[in-house]
Amino acid sequence: MDELVMTTIVASWRLVVGRLDERFTQLDDEQLQKPIAPNKNRLFYLLGHLTAVHDRMLPMLGIGERLHPELDEAYLTNPDRTIADPLSASELKRAWTEVNAAITSAVEGFSVDDWLRKHTAVSDEDFSTNPTRNRLAVFLNRTNHTSFHTGQIALAK
Amino acid sequence: MDELVMTTIVASWRLVVGRLDERFTQLDDEQLQKPIAPNKNRLFYLLGHLTAVHDRMLPMLGIGERLHPELDEAYLTNPDRTIADPLSASELKRAWTEVNAAITSAVEGFSVDDWLRKHTAVSDEDFSTNPTRNRLAVFLNRTNHTSFHTGQIALAK
Repeated sequence: MDELVMTTIVASWRLVVGRLDERFTQLDDEQLQKPIAPNKNRLFYLLGHLTAVHDRMLPMLGIGERLHPELDEAYLTNPDRTIADPLSASELKRAWTEVNAAITSAVEGFSVDDWLRKHTAVSDEDFSTNPTRNRLAVFLNRTNHTSFHTGQIALAK
Repeated sequence: MDELVMTTIVASWRLVVGRLDERFTQLDDEQLQKPIAPNKNRLFYLLGHLTAVHDRMLPMLGIGERLHPELDEAYLTNPDRTIADPLSASELKRAWTEVNAAITSAVEGFSVDDWLRKHTAVSDEDFSTNPTRNRLAVFLNRTNHTSFHTGQIALAK
């Protein structure tokens, strides 16, 4: 019973990430350089941003060390077009796939107890007063963050 | 234990809907008529679309009858600017709030069994081969759908 709840939650993540995967796969290097709308972020920037955010999920969910901390300066700390892209389009696409695979594979093995454990960015004190600041909350939040940017990416021709 | 999983899931919905609520509240009638980007859907259309999609969740999740079926033709069946808006901005904002309140209040009372029951748009046969086609899957999917359009709405000035 519990297991089916967890399977449904991971299936939702798979669906969201899978749809975006499909979209990114279809975009060539030139298309990735286009903005999602006039004067807005490039598709390339959003791919970098999502990869960096998902990479940070690895330590947050207690899965492991980060794989691509080199993305933070260009895609988390600074706005688009201020820092040179540290990876080529094919390298970035590979990083995106690699990070998501690491997350999906780890969370498929999570028990209910694992999901309800505190994430590493919340203090013991804050967690004891608010137990919904758990790994599941981070995971649902990040799934919705992916959907947020997928909606923007869908606007690009 | 189970309860905390469900509380976390409903909190994620509340967060996503709450952020969009805040955004819509700040927009006046004139701003709602603007497109999210050149030649794209109006904010008004997306508010209508999200209200119609959430309204359809009421029967899908077995919560109750639809409250605003009058929105379908303008915001589900047809693209933007082809059908006259059936409600004024203030009426539509009220419908959005009303529909979300009905959903939130009902799902807060859902047990794990309720969440894992089939939704009404899937056949008994399909559900028996794929038990992840449950109410929880619909709820997570719709939460992500809201985030998808929130990302687009965030682009509008």
